[in-house]
Amino acid sequence: MAVYTKVDDQTLNAFLANYDVGEAVSFKGIAEGVENSNYLLETTKSRYILTLYEKRANPEELPYFLNLMEHLEANGIPSPLPIRDKTGKALQKLAGKPACLISFLSGVSVDYPTEMQCAALGAMLAEMHKAGQSFTESRANDLSLDGWKSLAKKTQNRADEVAPGLASEITQEIASLSENWPQGLPSGTIHADLFPDNVLFTGNSITGVIDFYFGCTDMLAYDLAVCINAWCFDQDHNFMPAHAKRLVEMYDAHRPISAAEITALPLLCRGAAMRFLLTRLYDWLNPVEGAVVTPKNPLDYLKRLKFHQQIKDAAQYVV
Amino acid sequence: MAVYTKVDDQTLNAFLANYDVGEAVSFKGIAEGVENSNYLLETTKSRYILTLYEKRANPEELPYFLNLMEHLEANGIPSPLPIRDKTGKALQKLAGKPACLISFLSGVSVDYPTEMQCAALGAMLAEMHKAGQSFTESRANDLSLDGWKSLAKKTQNRADEVAPGLASEITQEIASLSENWPQGLPSGTIHADLFPDNVLFTGNSITGVIDFYFGCTDMLAYDLAVCINAWCFDQDHNFMPAHAKRLVEMYDAHRPISAAEITALPLLCRGAAMRFLLTRLYDWLNPVEGAVVTPKNPLDYLKRLKFHQQIKDAAQYVV
Repeated sequence: MAVYTKVDDQTLNAFLANYDVGEAVSFKGIAEGVENSNYLLETTKSRYILTLYEKRANPEELPYFLNLMEHLEANGIPSPLPIRDKTGKALQKLAGKPACLISFLSGVSVDYPTEMQCAALGAMLAEMHKAGQSFTESRANDLSLDGWKSLAKKTQNRADEVAPGLASEITQEIASLSENWPQGLPSGTIHADLFPDNVLFTGNSITGVIDFYFGCTDMLAYDLAVCINAWCFDQDHNFMPAHAKRLVEMYDAHRPISAAEITALPLLCRGAAMRFLLTRLYDWLNPVEGAVVTPKNPLDYLKRLKFHQQIKDAAQYVV
Repeated sequence: MAVYTKVDDQTLNAFLANYDVGEAVSFKGIAEGVENSNYLLETTKSRYILTLYEKRANPEELPYFLNLMEHLEANGIPSPLPIRDKTGKALQKLAGKPACLISFLSGVSVDYPTEMQCAALGAMLAEMHKAGQSFTESRANDLSLDGWKSLAKKTQNRADEVAPGLASEITQEIASLSENWPQGLPSGTIHADLFPDNVLFTGNSITGVIDFYFGCTDMLAYDLAVCINAWCFDQDHNFMPAHAKRLVEMYDAHRPISAAEITALPLLCRGAAMRFLLTRLYDWLNPVEGAVVTPKNPLDYLKRLKFHQQIKDAAQYVV
């Protein structure tokens, strides 16, 4: 949530001269995204976000993410569009960092999504999955089973500092997930991190889906499981069934969910809860020096995990 | 350079309902100002900055700053305008913090001001001083002699960690400044912190003067001395006489500088250098926990101070 790399006005003007975007009228660092530096740029022609990718971003993966955004935008999804310079290049180097100018999207992210907004999300997620089917590139989900195992190992010794018994709960759950993790479900390009802060709304209409930097190829229903975790629990981390029902129903209306996917949903939800439990646990135990933001509490996702574990019938998500 | 207080969308919408500013279309935390939380807000009507005043701001002084901005804006200075709600109130409480919605100003701050931009600054500074003459409120400059003495005391024991001999240099200089500090020069409302990052330009035209939170009542020529320090030294902290000449000339063209003010200029410049040397030294020795930004090097201002000390004739600033 900060600007790590400063772009001075001369550097900015030289950079913009490579594009057909007009001249800078306003330029403000914005507190968006945890990992990169972002500027909101207004030019004489339009508005843009300028992103500088900081050290946690793998430069080799950036073309995948930019191509994905471009593909989705071209296929009707309100994704930011990477802007190409006069020579056709989108990925640049600026102030020593990989950088990209992308289109600005209006809208405000919601902190307490309503059922109506969950319905809009379900429709958008399904449309995004359909649009992703024609995207020809692929990228492994490095925050699936193998990634969880690696994070579990890295946090094992200190997990019990956060909650007694947490390390062994994680070990057991990962063993269970490994044994039962679904195979053969419809797969494709997923967002994999579609939290409310990555969706922009005007009222109940979605005007933007942003932050595709966890985008990857995985089971489509896993993306739905991420959304159930991220959108359908209240501030006390209790499940909100009506929210989930609207989300799943509208997803299904736009991309019919198979019986196998429904059956797998509780397990996928446990996996998604595990993913955020583990990354939050790791960040909690390894705070970034100088970070302004307090790490998010991993136990919010332990509570979700326990909820999903006691689900006997997938229909409980869609009652 | 961060957002310390989060404003969720429901809180924002309830807040905006008190105003005649339309509804939120976009809302982004911006990395502006070191001390407060700032959001760039676009509504169906216009664009605004929403500022939440964090703990370093003294709530009792906020009405002065807001009234000053309103006065300057009404008198032709491109200052942000505090927006009044439907009941006429500008200063609010939001998310537990004092807060104010202010008008958004276009323009980009320059990192390496040109001579032309220094000329524009001189004219604007003089106009701001003239507009400030009819502002009836006053506020003591708490970062003048008494403030320096207090900061010198607080940093004395550790100043030599930054540069050997620094503590005694500061003591001597403050003694000299105390003895010779000008009296009876034209006084009025000054900005007192008019660095390049507080001025917005479109090309060579100033479109905004911002961050009035050090505004106070003091000698007008002291404000000019701050600008000489902040705008007329290069990246290696060497004086750029042509920049200073343009700045002072254009100031003089808009508000004639008296002979007494010219004579006092070297001393005022030493004082201004001391002010930034001391606040930077204090921040350097007392880094804010969790701050993203590296404190600025106090020695940049020691170099400026030494330059001003060897000035024999005020005319050297305006050659």
